[in-house]
Amino acid sequence: MADLEKDIVGMLETLGSHGKDPAGGISRFLYSKEWLAAQKYLEQEMKELGLDVHFDEIGNLYGQLKGSKYPNETILSGSHVDTVGNAGYYDGQLGIVAAFLAIKYLKEKYGQPLRNIEVISMAEEEGSRFPYAFWGSKNVVGTAKREDVENIKDADGVSFVDAMRECGFDFREENKGIREDIKAFVEMHNEQGGVLEAEKKSVGVVTSIVGQRRFNVEIGGQANHAGTTPMGYRKDAVFAASQMIYEIITEAKKYGDPLVTTVGQIEVTPNVVNVVPGKALFTMDIRHTEKSALVDFTDVVTEKINTIAKEHGVDVSIDMWMDEDPVPMDEKIVKLIEESCDKNGLNYKVMHSGAGHDSQVLAPHVPTAMLFVPSRDGISHNPAEYTEPHDLAEGVKALMGALYELAYKE
Amino acid sequence: MADLEKDIVGMLETLGSHGKDPAGGISRFLYSKEWLAAQKYLEQEMKELGLDVHFDEIGNLYGQLKGSKYPNETILSGSHVDTVGNAGYYDGQLGIVAAFLAIKYLKEKYGQPLRNIEVISMAEEEGSRFPYAFWGSKNVVGTAKREDVENIKDADGVSFVDAMRECGFDFREENKGIREDIKAFVEMHNEQGGVLEAEKKSVGVVTSIVGQRRFNVEIGGQANHAGTTPMGYRKDAVFAASQMIYEIITEAKKYGDPLVTTVGQIEVTPNVVNVVPGKALFTMDIRHTEKSALVDFTDVVTEKINTIAKEHGVDVSIDMWMDEDPVPMDEKIVKLIEESCDKNGLNYKVMHSGAGHDSQVLAPHVPTAMLFVPSRDGISHNPAEYTEPHDLAEGVKALMGALYELAYKE
Repeated sequence: MADLEKDIVGMLETLGSHGKDPAGGISRFLYSKEWLAAQKYLEQEMKELGLDVHFDEIGNLYGQLKGSKYPNETILSGSHVDTVGNAGYYDGQLGIVAAFLAIKYLKEKYGQPLRNIEVISMAEEEGSRFPYAFWGSKNVVGTAKREDVENIKDADGVSFVDAMRECGFDFREENKGIREDIKAFVEMHNEQGGVLEAEKKSVGVVTSIVGQRRFNVEIGGQANHAGTTPMGYRKDAVFAASQMIYEIITEAKKYGDPLVTTVGQIEVTPNVVNVVPGKALFTMDIRHTEKSALVDFTDVVTEKINTIAKEHGVDVSIDMWMDEDPVPMDEKIVKLIEESCDKNGLNYKVMHSGAGHDSQVLAPHVPTAMLFVPSRDGISHNPAEYTEPHDLAEGVKALMGALYELAYKE
Repeated sequence: MADLEKDIVGMLETLGSHGKDPAGGISRFLYSKEWLAAQKYLEQEMKELGLDVHFDEIGNLYGQLKGSKYPNETILSGSHVDTVGNAGYYDGQLGIVAAFLAIKYLKEKYGQPLRNIEVISMAEEEGSRFPYAFWGSKNVVGTAKREDVENIKDADGVSFVDAMRECGFDFREENKGIREDIKAFVEMHNEQGGVLEAEKKSVGVVTSIVGQRRFNVEIGGQANHAGTTPMGYRKDAVFAASQMIYEIITEAKKYGDPLVTTVGQIEVTPNVVNVVPGKALFTMDIRHTEKSALVDFTDVVTEKINTIAKEHGVDVSIDMWMDEDPVPMDEKIVKLIEESCDKNGLNYKVMHSGAGHDSQVLAPHVPTAMLFVPSRDGISHNPAEYTEPHDLAEGVKALMGALYELAYKE
């Protein structure tokens, strides 16, 4: 299917031309001119394919291939059309292109399905322009709150509401849930990690999206002169922090996959070469597919941190400021995708997602599944983001298999 | 000697009124109006005491009590008159006040000495206004270089040279060494550390000023997504840094006094909660009274750092950007001061200085010694800097004893 590879790469490039950033990659923010042009381009493509096309109130774009037998049952597939700043060509838009081409190829090969198949280009997921993320998917399921965006502005001072209305969209009626005809959602996405590449797999079948907890750990020691304070007189916040960080990461490695723990940020006070630091703050990001493991590992590190603080004679506070539960994918659809991958001879791996996706917003409301394709060097949110055309095609084949099982079978 | 306590406190307060900062403490920067007022005040006090007073070319102020028998031999004592921003009432100015009052009391009690005794109020030590430190003492010994200050400016853009000339001073003739009549220098200073307080001593007799080495240690790992990168796939710069810092400080504690090692500054890249850090930089400040120990401990930590980097599979570079040798005080004067303290029943401790002082500039050129008084909680460079009046008086008594031995004895 060399045509499929060409089709995917070509459509990613055309879609990516809307928002091409002179500084590299794509910058296509919610309700920008480039964003609107991208949605209009997709609308046109969908119309040309003969789909029933419409925007919802806030600007999610839908294109439906009608089912013959169950007109009130829809299988939805797609992803988000917005990007971070200087994004690559895959994050988000690949899921839309893949769903569109899957429908196109299925239609060509099998004609009309029993159930509707519908591609969705969701308005927003990244939270890159306004301080709000998952605006698209939250409006699909009806959990977006008007009050959360009513008073927010972008970095240039443009209000969310003005930008939305400028594009011709407006708030959706509140408390209206997800459309009743939607029976399943399947999202394809690039992995944004290096597991598939390392294991030489073309496709990932996602069983779960990790839960995550984020913490600030703040250590209060005593600032002192670096020359006149003997080692035995010190309450060195950085010395305590270094032991904590070292032991936290060591524990995380010992705990084993799929647990990951990251100390990504450190702030030292006063942070000068010749003062024993009086304060140190570090962040902890802990993720796992099981809530119980998140709870368990939180206990492990909390005890470690408190013990080390006591040994060093420093104060410590641990503040958990994010606590998101893991989101399991629908077991039946996952099984069905695995079987379809086996049938089609695809080189796949069953795995979890360590990153958040639109699927986690839809999963509590409708049976949901995800497919991954590899990311070279695990790179994402960067113009260097890349997936081999061969793997792109394998991914779309897996998606076609899934949609075929869901929409063409009784 | 309740009068002595009162005299010291009173004179510190009056001197400290020149440069009193509404934001707290004293801000008295080189060649400022406040600085000039302080020097003029001291000049007046010295004149009233009957000393021979003069400024040198750059603005160091001297007041001499003439000796009867050796008019070509001078015992010098004093410290710097400038302060850091929001300084306390002790750092620097205490050494001037102590020398002035020691001369006053010695003159009252013993009359004219055999050798000249001279108080010096040095222009600058802190490097707080311009990016240059020890301007005063370097001009006393003749090692200040015109070219080093000719093109420097303060934060407001005022040039060093303009500020100097505005106060009525100018460059000293270059390559003119220290005055030949100066036979000894004794500086009194507050400790700026917590050792004397912890050991309940009133006076410190300094044997040596530490040498110091400063380093940047830079670790290059690989930045990765905090969710999608399993622990086994990471090259986490902060994980490696945490182990290095923990082991460096642990080694320093094991090495024992007087070694001190401080990791005061940490910079993480990109320093965000949800990215495995690709880079980490930390500083190391190592001090000891023996050069051989500095070299030895540098070897110890260099090997540690390289070994840990190898284990973590990260790159590391170690850059030593400061390497100052220790400066021993004059053994004969130190011994003489100890004997004098014993004779006068003073509660003293023989110790080193972990901080730099004017004495380290003078010591290579003239026999030099230092005396410390306690700093409450070890605090310095802060309006909360404090020394008990009783300890101030004990310190001045120790200085009087030293000057008596040096100037009144054959």
